[in-house]
Amino acid sequence: MKRVRLSIVGFGVVGQGLAELLHTKRELLRRTFSLEVVLVSVSNSRHGFIYRDEGLDIPTLLDLSARRQPLTQHADIQHWPNALEGLQATTADVLAEATWTNLQDAEPGISHIRAALTKGIHVISANKGPAALAATELLTLAQQHGVQLRLEATVMAGTPILSTVQEGMAGVNIHAVRGILNGTTNYILTAMARGRNYAEVLAEAQGLGYAEADPTADVEGYDVVAKTLILAALVFGQSLKPEQVKREGITGITREQIQQAAHEGKRIKLVASLSRAADMPAAPLEARVEPIALAAEDALAQVNGVMNALTFHSDSLSSVTIIGPGAGRLETGQGLLADLIAVSKTL
Amino acid sequence: MKRVRLSIVGFGVVGQGLAELLHTKRELLRRTFSLEVVLVSVSNSRHGFIYRDEGLDIPTLLDLSARRQPLTQHADIQHWPNALEGLQATTADVLAEATWTNLQDAEPGISHIRAALTKGIHVISANKGPAALAATELLTLAQQHGVQLRLEATVMAGTPILSTVQEGMAGVNIHAVRGILNGTTNYILTAMARGRNYAEVLAEAQGLGYAEADPTADVEGYDVVAKTLILAALVFGQSLKPEQVKREGITGITREQIQQAAHEGKRIKLVASLSRAADMPAAPLEARVEPIALAAEDALAQVNGVMNALTFHSDSLSSVTIIGPGAGRLETGQGLLADLIAVSKTL
Repeated sequence: MKRVRLSIVGFGVVGQGLAELLHTKRELLRRTFSLEVVLVSVSNSRHGFIYRDEGLDIPTLLDLSARRQPLTQHADIQHWPNALEGLQATTADVLAEATWTNLQDAEPGISHIRAALTKGIHVISANKGPAALAATELLTLAQQHGVQLRLEATVMAGTPILSTVQEGMAGVNIHAVRGILNGTTNYILTAMARGRNYAEVLAEAQGLGYAEADPTADVEGYDVVAKTLILAALVFGQSLKPEQVKREGITGITREQIQQAAHEGKRIKLVASLSRAADMPAAPLEARVEPIALAAEDALAQVNGVMNALTFHSDSLSSVTIIGPGAGRLETGQGLLADLIAVSKTL
Repeated sequence: MKRVRLSIVGFGVVGQGLAELLHTKRELLRRTFSLEVVLVSVSNSRHGFIYRDEGLDIPTLLDLSARRQPLTQHADIQHWPNALEGLQATTADVLAEATWTNLQDAEPGISHIRAALTKGIHVISANKGPAALAATELLTLAQQHGVQLRLEATVMAGTPILSTVQEGMAGVNIHAVRGILNGTTNYILTAMARGRNYAEVLAEAQGLGYAEADPTADVEGYDVVAKTLILAALVFGQSLKPEQVKREGITGITREQIQQAAHEGKRIKLVASLSRAADMPAAPLEARVEPIALAAEDALAQVNGVMNALTFHSDSLSSVTIIGPGAGRLETGQGLLADLIAVSKTL
């Protein structure tokens, strides 16, 4: 039995989703992977960082979080005012970074990740900020310290994208990817294709929790730009800046345009794409996020509602498309869990 | 640089596909994986098994094969009348098994695989016979000898299915899979949906090389049954026998049935399915291969021509669908290549 000591920094929706999976899948992890995960520390921005060498009790933490109570449970729990101080003062084998996504400067996640990697702690992260703005720098830092940085949960939640590129499709030369990477906008466009109008559907998506009160990051394409930058780094090994992605959101799309497309057998989707000349691995990438009227035969045209999808075009596999959930508490937690299992195999 | 000594047994379409990829991707393998593959032995049923300790020249082998010449090229090449004798007399780190699929008794592939595993040689295989009839036995044998047996290329060629279940979706509890796993029948059904008749399309598929002269294995569903058995073993850990799969082919489907389905917005596909009660991991599997009229919203309904697809239903990822090529020389070779890279990481 392999015992892995885990720290979860950011105990919101995603961090709690991972904790819940670790609890409900405890037996499966033991039986299938000979893996026992001990949650040694947890933090959130409200209550700071707590650490207990013998491990924390997950159901208690989930219950305290649900009641918005301080996470401290035992007399022997140590406490620091914030995650960065806690990480620097304590130990773990793996850090799960699940604080909020900041696409301006990637803080505080990037500082947590740098601190962990520098201490020789493996990092699995669901945080799109550091992955979008600094994946190449952070992967280099991980390599320098002989540890892994895995980012599966940053693109399409736990739907296996990044591991598939790196493992299942190892040796494939990918020259283009095209995808639907935002559930909110796909939900809105799908409903508009059924005849409803933008404002009404947006309000409904907000009510269902699919869209934020301020929907700008989704509907203007910034969230998809972030995922496009992550794919540029991890699929193509190229660091792009946000301003190198040609971006257009969906706010200018009218119901009439959508119906006109439908009339021609097409579907308008917010499509992220990265491509380079097929025979030039080092050629610069063209990166775009924009609404496109897709032909009905396109695998992406049939991806509806909050589902996401990504198509890889390559030399030895023509095209491969992966369709799956793009968000969600357990779905994103699952991306972290798969990365945790992958890391644990090397420990 | 890691040097891996490879034996390719079965130098037909798939074995040659792998060899070609090893040759064209030599630089990519060095640069990306620090991997140098030395092809030390090759066999085919016509010319037997040849071995050269320093490695064989791939372009020469491909040229000799294309001209149906004996594969012997150098004075220092050793020769055995068949692969089994050759494997027993020589050494390698990895065996790529790519002989013909025999769904009766899995020979000669299964003997090659047993011989290699018993000698402590890792095995990657594209041969559906041993995988369908004896995956559990062979995986146990591999474990006993401390080596890996990887079978990515046996289901949907190099489209990453088995590695995705085992790595990208590690920790997911899958309770059902449903897929389109045969390109020939999907090509025929797709053409029939466009108004053509069975006999005409079958003849065309035979002309294009998509269907065999004797199409029974495809059109009666035996090929899909084999893949269903492989998925039962590798996704669910259950050994099923062919007679435990309820099987119905496509020869009874009329153009009228297909047009009637289309009229209702549905598509008839030859669907393989495996399922068990969601909350009972040890419950017996229900296994079926049969034509089904799929609703247009089903991700599988839109998979046309020779493309294949598989949907996984699970606890923490709801549904994930992977669409990709299901056959082909380079596509199947790519499945072997990805497995070879995975094995090499553990050497």
